[in-house]
Amino acid sequence: MLPRTYDNQVCSVARTLEVIGDRWTMLVIRDAFLGLRRFEDIQRDLGIARNVLADRLARLVDEGILERRLYQEKPARHDYRLTDKGRDLWPVMVGLMRWGDRHSPAAGGPPSRVIHRDCGGELDDRLICERCGEPVTVESARVERRPDLVATRAPAA
Amino acid sequence: MLPRTYDNQVCSVARTLEVIGDRWTMLVIRDAFLGLRRFEDIQRDLGIARNVLADRLARLVDEGILERRLYQEKPARHDYRLTDKGRDLWPVMVGLMRWGDRHSPAAGGPPSRVIHRDCGGELDDRLICERCGEPVTVESARVERRPDLVATRAPAA
Repeated sequence: MLPRTYDNQVCSVARTLEVIGDRWTMLVIRDAFLGLRRFEDIQRDLGIARNVLADRLARLVDEGILERRLYQEKPARHDYRLTDKGRDLWPVMVGLMRWGDRHSPAAGGPPSRVIHRDCGGELDDRLICERCGEPVTVESARVERRPDLVATRAPAA
Repeated sequence: MLPRTYDNQVCSVARTLEVIGDRWTMLVIRDAFLGLRRFEDIQRDLGIARNVLADRLARLVDEGILERRLYQEKPARHDYRLTDKGRDLWPVMVGLMRWGDRHSPAAGGPPSRVIHRDCGGELDDRLICERCGEPVTVESARVERRPDLVATRAPAA
């Protein structure tokens, strides 16, 4: 992780990057948006070292972006869910995905598409459904992965 | 910089982070959006080590996000400007800024605001002008810095 050497940067971009400006952190947040909630599922999906993932999850909980919840009592098991603050990163996440689709395209087309749940339309740059014209929120969107890639991925918890 | 250990991540978010997933890189791009073009101005603004800045600028030129241009012949002087690919990061940049304004607020309110150039309205989460309802692009926007912060900043070249 970069040292925090830009405390003199009075800027909301800089302040945001203090919290999420680490690539693993962003990929953990992406997995949360994809519905992965359990340590084991995220670890398997990212192929990330367990101590690194534990560190990133703890920081995201500290920052109020993820919430750690008990989902099973005996034995105690916790999972991680986006808070409202975390869900507010939705426009950034869609922006990163769209930019990658356009400028670093994967062979065979976009690996996944963000779809308006109600009508199946795709989103434009302003998170508006290209088919029906409705503004799409994180609640009214779903992510469709390319069928040939789904098998390589852990199922959403 | 993180090692690129997630080559197995077939995902446009991961691919984007390969290119811009470094905090200094994002701050250099932010400065480009703010109109800073010259090495000296960016270096002074960020307080970044010269070798680190040179490295990030070279990578951004390699990736086609910035273009290095001769602006003076004798002596030869170059500056750095966003390409179309770079300008396409506008929604991500505005998203990072808005999230920071909301969740890591600076004392005294947002350090800067993105304004619709034509009417002075602010942008909503969908980059639409809250005053006149027009979609705002990077070309039709300007960034207004809080007056008490402007003096601490190098002037735009």
